[in-house]
Order: sequence, then structure tokens, then C-alpha cells
Amino acid sequence: MFITFEGIDGSGKSTQARMLAEALRGAGHDVVLTREPGGSPGAEEIRRLVLEGDPDRWSAETEILLFTAARRDHMERVIEPALAAGKVVVSDRFADSTRMYQGLSRGDLRGLVDQLHRLMIGREPDLTFIIDMDPETGLARAKGRMGREERFEDFGADLQHRMRAGFLALADEFPARCRVIDGNRPPDEVGREVAALALASLG
Amino acid sequence: MFITFEGIDGSGKSTQARMLAEALRGAGHDVVLTREPGGSPGAEEIRRLVLEGDPDRWSAETEILLFTAARRDHMERVIEPALAAGKVVVSDRFADSTRMYQGLSRGDLRGLVDQLHRLMIGREPDLTFIIDMDPETGLARAKGRMGREERFEDFGADLQHRMRAGFLALADEFPARCRVIDGNRPPDEVGREVAALALASLG
Repeated sequence: MFITFEGIDGSGKSTQARMLAEALRGAGHDVVLTREPGGSPGAEEIRRLVLEGDPDRWSAETEILLFTAARRDHMERVIEPALAAGKVVVSDRFADSTRMYQGLSRGDLRGLVDQLHRLMIGREPDLTFIIDMDPETGLARAKGRMGREERFEDFGADLQHRMRAGFLALADEFPARCRVIDGNRPPDEVGREVAALALASLG
Repeated sequence: MFITFEGIDGSGKSTQARMLAEALRGAGHDVVLTREPGGSPGAEEIRRLVLEGDPDRWSAETEILLFTAARRDHMERVIEPALAAGKVVVSDRFADSTRMYQGLSRGDLRGLVDQLHRLMIGREPDLTFIIDMDPETGLARAKGRMGREERFEDFGADLQHRMRAGFLALADEFPARCRVIDGNRPPDEVGREVAALALASLG
């Protein structure tokens, strides 16, 4: 089973992905916890190429190609082998993040993102938790931990609001796999809801 | 006008691209001489990511995505602006090299290469010189200058023969833009034929 976490910056995706991996391990599952962009040695190199340096050095289209290359490597080297071995894969971000960030934030490239995904990746997660969060709160959290990979323009309030709306629309678009989770609660409470839903899906 | 040079390793493409740029400049044209993979600062970084290190660290599919990302950057930053400014662009390799090397050498991925090209690049050269060369001679030349970017498996005689046949088939596939040039002659003689054809096309 392939489970992903999505949502705006500062929504608590990484914390929740970690907590779910622990909960599933506690229930006896063999879990691979991973993340995007990156997740395999090659994909982490591509991540650095994209996220470090001048944010304008790649066009949106080139960035989509680089993220798709990283995702292809991550799929081949980490996700597919783990799923084939019967493990549960939990990923902090996956293709939905590209649909939102590259598909919406730098012009309307969603169609291009989807065509590339169908051509080169194909797979969708079995279950996607969209951690919904007040954009202002998320923004404040994300700013607090800003590192060298972060871009100033990714932290605009306007973008956070548009991304939040985009993720909620995505949940409507893929209702079979997406679960919107209220992230405006203590992490433990969010984690209990997520774990219960994941364990129910795992049967 | 966008002119490319293609052919097997050791066929003399780079020498001919340089000589043509000089000949066209001598005839009063404003020429941008470039190369692939690479040709722009971003694309050169992607080139290093692909060509240095363990040759098996990327799958053929990931490699195609990385080369397409590099080509997109090269197009946006170098080729399109030069053509828009009325310059002649001469490139040592372009998409035909991906059609051959990634499309043929590591499984039959030609269809995938073409789909990605249509989706993300679109443009074809106006004129392509395919420098045809005896595969054994090309192999010996290429081996003589092997550097850290070169991969041992790229220098097999069998691959050189298949690539030569592939480039000749490509010339049949795109007859409007491709000219097959006999490279088994002194470089000056080859260069005179190439320059005459290019100048005739430029009108």
C-alpha cells in the first residue's frame, strides 16, 4: 500500500508521515518512510539541483521535468521495490505537490504536469492524506524553520491561500484516494485520526 | 536558422560544427555555436549530473527526462533567443542524439523520446548534417580522447554499428532537414561540402 501526505507548507505533513510510519510499525507492518522531492540518492541530487541556488534559474517547465526525473528515480529505486516486497510506503509529498506547486504557482501548467505524469510515472497513491491547515498558521510555522532550500516567494500569504484551495479541489478531483484531515489540532489528535483511517484501509 | 550536427562518436561532429560556424561568420552571418548535452549554464549542470559518476545510476527513462530538462533549458536560454534575434544557431548534437542513444541503446524507448520531445521541446532543426563515418574509425578516434564523462559501454563496436545504421535511418525519416555527409575524408574537404550546403540553405 502506497500512502502519501500532501498539504501547504507548515501543515505538519512531515510530522504526520513520521507518526503514521511509527503507528503502522507498531501494528506489525513493514514500513518504508520516504519523502519528495528526493527519496533516493539520485533524486536527492536532483532535489539539490532544483532547490538550491537562484530560484529563477529554471523555468517552470524545466523544473517540472527535473521533478519528474527525480520522481521516476524515486519510484524505480525505492517505492516500487518496497511495494513489490509487500511493504507499506509512506511518502511526505508525491505527484500532487507537483500538480499544485509547479502546476498552479507559476502559470497554468497543470495539463502539462498531468501529461508528463501519465507518460513517465503512471502510478497514483492508494491513499492520500491532505492535511488542511489555516494558511496564516502554516505560513508562520514554515517561516520559522526556513532553511537554505526554501524560497522566499514560496512563503507569500496569497500563494498559501491559493495552494490550500488547490489541495481541497484536488481532494474533490480524486475522492477515492484522498482524505482531507483537519490539521488545526494538536499533532497527536491528528495522528490518531490518520492512523485509524490508514489501518482501516489496510484491512 | 537552426543547424545541428549528428553522428556516431568520433565522426568529427564537433570539428565540423566549429568549422561551419567560422565559415558562416566569414560570410557575414551572426552565429551562435553551441552543443548538447549542455549549452546553457543550467543544462551543463544537468549534463554533469547525467554523465559523471556510475553509468548505471540512472535508468534509461530517468536519463531521457534529464536530457529533456537540459534541452528545454538550452532552448529557452540560448537557442530561442538567438533565433529570435536573427542569428544562426549551430549545435553539436540535439534531439536526434537522444532519439539514437537513449531511444535505441538501452531498450526500445524511441516512442517515449518522441512523445517527450513533442510535449516539452517541439522544435526541430531547419538543417541537420549527419556525419557518416566508418564505425571502426570513429571508435578508434573516440577512444583516443576518452575523458571522465565517457562511458566504456558507449564505445562498443556493436553499438557504434547500430548507431550508424540508426542515424542513416533517421536521415530517411526526416529527409527535408537531414543531409548525410561522408565523413571518411579530410576534415577540410568535409567542411567545404557542409559550408556550401549551409550557405545554399541560408539563401
